[in-house]
Amino acid sequence: MMKKFINKPENLTTELLEGMALAYPDKIAVEGGKLVVRAKPKDSGKVAVISMGGSGHEPAISGFVGEGMLDASVVGDIFAAPNAMAVLEALRKFKREAGILLVVLNHAGDVMSANMALKLAEREGIKVRKLLTTDDISAGLETPISDRRGLAGCIPVIKVAGAAAEEGKSLDEVFEIAEKFNSRVSTLAVAIGGCTHPQTGMPIGDLPDGEMEIGMGQHGEGGGGRSKILTADETARIMFSQLSKASELKSGEEAFLMVNGSGATTIMEMSIVFRAASKFAAESGVKIEFGIIDEILTVQEMAGFQMVLCPLEGESRRLLKARSNTPYWTCVGE
Amino acid sequence: MMKKFINKPENLTTELLEGMALAYPDKIAVEGGKLVVRAKPKDSGKVAVISMGGSGHEPAISGFVGEGMLDASVVGDIFAAPNAMAVLEALRKFKREAGILLVVLNHAGDVMSANMALKLAEREGIKVRKLLTTDDISAGLETPISDRRGLAGCIPVIKVAGAAAEEGKSLDEVFEIAEKFNSRVSTLAVAIGGCTHPQTGMPIGDLPDGEMEIGMGQHGEGGGGRSKILTADETARIMFSQLSKASELKSGEEAFLMVNGSGATTIMEMSIVFRAASKFAAESGVKIEFGIIDEILTVQEMAGFQMVLCPLEGESRRLLKARSNTPYWTCVGE
Repeated sequence: MMKKFINKPENLTTELLEGMALAYPDKIAVEGGKLVVRAKPKDSGKVAVISMGGSGHEPAISGFVGEGMLDASVVGDIFAAPNAMAVLEALRKFKREAGILLVVLNHAGDVMSANMALKLAEREGIKVRKLLTTDDISAGLETPISDRRGLAGCIPVIKVAGAAAEEGKSLDEVFEIAEKFNSRVSTLAVAIGGCTHPQTGMPIGDLPDGEMEIGMGQHGEGGGGRSKILTADETARIMFSQLSKASELKSGEEAFLMVNGSGATTIMEMSIVFRAASKFAAESGVKIEFGIIDEILTVQEMAGFQMVLCPLEGESRRLLKARSNTPYWTCVGE
Repeated sequence: MMKKFINKPENLTTELLEGMALAYPDKIAVEGGKLVVRAKPKDSGKVAVISMGGSGHEPAISGFVGEGMLDASVVGDIFAAPNAMAVLEALRKFKREAGILLVVLNHAGDVMSANMALKLAEREGIKVRKLLTTDDISAGLETPISDRRGLAGCIPVIKVAGAAAEEGKSLDEVFEIAEKFNSRVSTLAVAIGGCTHPQTGMPIGDLPDGEMEIGMGQHGEGGGGRSKILTADETARIMFSQLSKASELKSGEEAFLMVNGSGATTIMEMSIVFRAASKFAAESGVKIEFGIIDEILTVQEMAGFQMVLCPLEGESRRLLKARSNTPYWTCVGE
């Protein structure tokens, strides 16, 4: 028996999106079942920022549609990429002189759909650039960027891109700002307990009791770093030191840090982890300026979290703090 | 072996508060270990709104300190009320002509500490009024209000009170607006899986596999309504219809609805529940105007949620949407 509050498994995605839009009707609306758009779209003079991905990871990605972040989210079924035609339809809908930035997390299905849609869109004269997020460092620092998966780091990237677009920057400017920020974002996940696929009822990423795994992916793919369960401080130290290397953080730099819950891990625990990471950063002369401790991109009820490190250069600090009005990331602006 | 990311159990509360303040340094600060205050306090001309309660329920209550909501949160240890002296110290710190509204959830320990602190504060000439939240309807509709526990309904009450205080209303006005809103807020919890006490490692509120319990309290106290696990729609119908009765919702009225995760339940599931409740409301002529689907007041990693119904009368809609800038409830304002 599945221990989840659901109805028919085949309706999960449409029902959840409908529910989210009913809770946040001033912010988002659903079109045609699986396209989430802003409830109050701005004039089409600005660059449109669109992302895409499977459902089952709520609030990501659709919970970040709204002023200052996404113009639209193209939603696939549970853990499944949306198909190329759905992406193409979104690109057609947002076709405009200013152009479209399409943010794609590096997962095979998403990249395949995105590339096919982009090819067709370009034939139709739609101006669009693709930004690939590749923040997962679990495969090791020598792994080519193209082999790194996209994890929760996409959300701060979308914040930066969305804020730049909202300010009226050109597509090339938005792309460059977001890509520069993105190039130093790194993420590492740790799991301490598995979860259940909400359609099949199958267990995902189960771990032996008393063990944890650093490097586990968004759908329970093992990262190889198993150990007995460590304290919050020990876990944070291991993860932060790897992230710091991957992001090439230097003494004197400042950073934004996100501790993103995978599902069952409490904000209590994540706050304790944030504290530890912030202290380790300080030891090496790095200041964690501010951050987020929350469930942003989840893996059902998996116990664990993703630590996302974003060095702050140039305009990114201002853009991360710029006004936004989405269901799950709202800023009053400065 | 406890499957949690923690350090020494006795330091849980101070470490978690320190971590939260490090993530949101523009919004909150910690004083003396267990008092959370605004990072940028406003002039003392306005009514101060203060709340209190045990930790282990994050983000509540300290995550709602900031502009437009709380001026301070007095924090107890895990699941334990803060002592009367800690509450008195907070009242002393916020002593002002405009006065203080102290929001207290109806739990024996909290009420005892609050009453003792109030008695001592009054002797010192501190102007303060107590607002008791009693939203849990699990004991039945005939149960006297004073026997109802305070659940997650305290958070919308704090939003309404905080916004009214921010507008410069007097203590009596803030109290009356908040109390009127509070008098119709009702909450019902459902649990589908238990959790672990983070200090003792003891299981809390464990349920037989395949069962759910409607009416379970904030610390796993059983509410008596056990059944096999129902679908999201069935669960929402049962809960919403009881809440609707308790809140005396009439056809033509509008309401705010919160689906508050207890810990391990996904935003996916809560969105599906929100959708169902919204549809049932419409059947009886009630419009769910907007809401929240999120973890607001949790019970560690318990699987389940609290459904909180708040009829919208008078100024409450405007106050719920008014500008706020706290770690876990931010509104850009209208």
